[in-house]
Amino acid sequence: MKKLKRSERLVELTQYLLSRPHSLIPLTTFAERYQSAKSSISEDLAIIKEVFQEEGIGELQTMAGAAGGVRFMPKVPVAQSLAFIESICRELEQPDRILPGGYMYMSDILGEPRTVNEIGRTFATLFAEIEADAVMTVETKGIPLAYATASYLNLPVIIVRRDHSAVEGSAVSINYVSGSAKRMHTMSLGRRALREQSRVLIVDDFMRAGGTIQGMKDLLAEFRAQVAGVGVFVESGDVEEHLVTDYVSLARIQDIDTKSKVACVTPGNYFTAADSSAVSQQRGGVLS
Amino acid sequence: MKKLKRSERLVELTQYLLSRPHSLIPLTTFAERYQSAKSSISEDLAIIKEVFQEEGIGELQTMAGAAGGVRFMPKVPVAQSLAFIESICRELEQPDRILPGGYMYMSDILGEPRTVNEIGRTFATLFAEIEADAVMTVETKGIPLAYATASYLNLPVIIVRRDHSAVEGSAVSINYVSGSAKRMHTMSLGRRALREQSRVLIVDDFMRAGGTIQGMKDLLAEFRAQVAGVGVFVESGDVEEHLVTDYVSLARIQDIDTKSKVACVTPGNYFTAADSSAVSQQRGGVLS
Repeated sequence: MKKLKRSERLVELTQYLLSRPHSLIPLTTFAERYQSAKSSISEDLAIIKEVFQEEGIGELQTMAGAAGGVRFMPKVPVAQSLAFIESICRELEQPDRILPGGYMYMSDILGEPRTVNEIGRTFATLFAEIEADAVMTVETKGIPLAYATASYLNLPVIIVRRDHSAVEGSAVSINYVSGSAKRMHTMSLGRRALREQSRVLIVDDFMRAGGTIQGMKDLLAEFRAQVAGVGVFVESGDVEEHLVTDYVSLARIQDIDTKSKVACVTPGNYFTAADSSAVSQQRGGVLS
Repeated sequence: MKKLKRSERLVELTQYLLSRPHSLIPLTTFAERYQSAKSSISEDLAIIKEVFQEEGIGELQTMAGAAGGVRFMPKVPVAQSLAFIESICRELEQPDRILPGGYMYMSDILGEPRTVNEIGRTFATLFAEIEADAVMTVETKGIPLAYATASYLNLPVIIVRRDHSAVEGSAVSINYVSGSAKRMHTMSLGRRALREQSRVLIVDDFMRAGGTIQGMKDLLAEFRAQVAGVGVFVESGDVEEHLVTDYVSLARIQDIDTKSKVACVTPGNYFTAADSSAVSQQRGGVLS
């Protein structure tokens, strides 16, 4: 790369860091890349750090010493996430979203990459410190959220299948009961998809009683892997008993009346249960 | 927002543009946002434009006049895409990827968000000028690629289901025959997922004879929508007759020998068929 001026270096550094979240980059990498003194790079990084913090883009962590360098951690301020989720709640309350059986139409919202990325950024903030090795979800609708989250956390994604597909090779299957409908289902994961002892963040779009999440937890146990955290986009409040209790939700459907087409959706326990040990434990003290 | 210095403005502008690809942003937006003269903003943008071009990040298009502004088009140079795809081809040729029936294990590669984003950036380059209204894929493995592509093109994603899920509302279903196995399948799409007359970019992870792609095309016809382009990540060369001919592939499995565990994978027609009218038409003259 040709030698850059400071103004050019700032542009290049900004895009370089944004495209490599949660990666420790030694200062020497930049010094060589831009043919500049480390002291100049440090000054550049100080400017970027301040803008990223002021604008709610994230933290730029600098580590001194031989193994040192800089790491960009995408983090969105809770107030900004809350404003975003509040607007989604209003969208979800539109009467024409209410489907037979008390289901809610969300495909359009989850079809907008910018919305999906913002949800991923919120999960990545929340789970920034849990040191997960991978993000897991079950097909289909959780997949975009899992990728958005994993992209900001720089982690691989593992997709659990509802059937056993030929292109996974040998697989481990488990049966699980969906809590609300009490029906038996199967989910499977390719043997080579997950290393033993991995710490896994589970992400899904929707949770009612938590049967599907519990199924993923059971599957992780088969792989001797651990649950590092559970994040769901929307939870249903229409539940007598939760199969899973240690989760973080971004929104909560308090009530759906299919006759009058009235729904009430509020921010989830990430925003409301600030004292809940389950939430604060999962979010690793981001809010504190 | 407080008044920023030029150095800070460059950082903020860079991240602002990167997170809003394919969006026309009036200069007044920046002038107000940063409390700066339009002439200063123009100078900033000239610096960013040059760095983005030099580094293969994309084009910064500036439109003059009352309806003018600036638009960031992510574009990766073909040589850089080719180097990336060549390395993927080498990975795909690893003997332990060959599964019974001549299938190839790709879940780990498609599980890496950075790889998926790079594929998305390549498709977004290729289909930058086709003026699509949405990106469509069928569950499951094409989903991450569709979102990555759509994210860079600033388009919504439409996911076709292999079953008819209760949470889509009323849906249109079609039957299709997978070309290689000659088996009958069903795919469906919620009625409200797609507006009539939409121009749709189809993206998928794998194509053999093209039965699944043809199914999506048939589904689009049911919605009176048009196919704006077809991009597949990997195509199989083991095909007697293609059901679909107007597509662009990034990689091509030339041969798999399940006994000797030898596979040969090469770059797809995006790189090799520079004269093919199908490809050059689809890519809208990006290479020219």
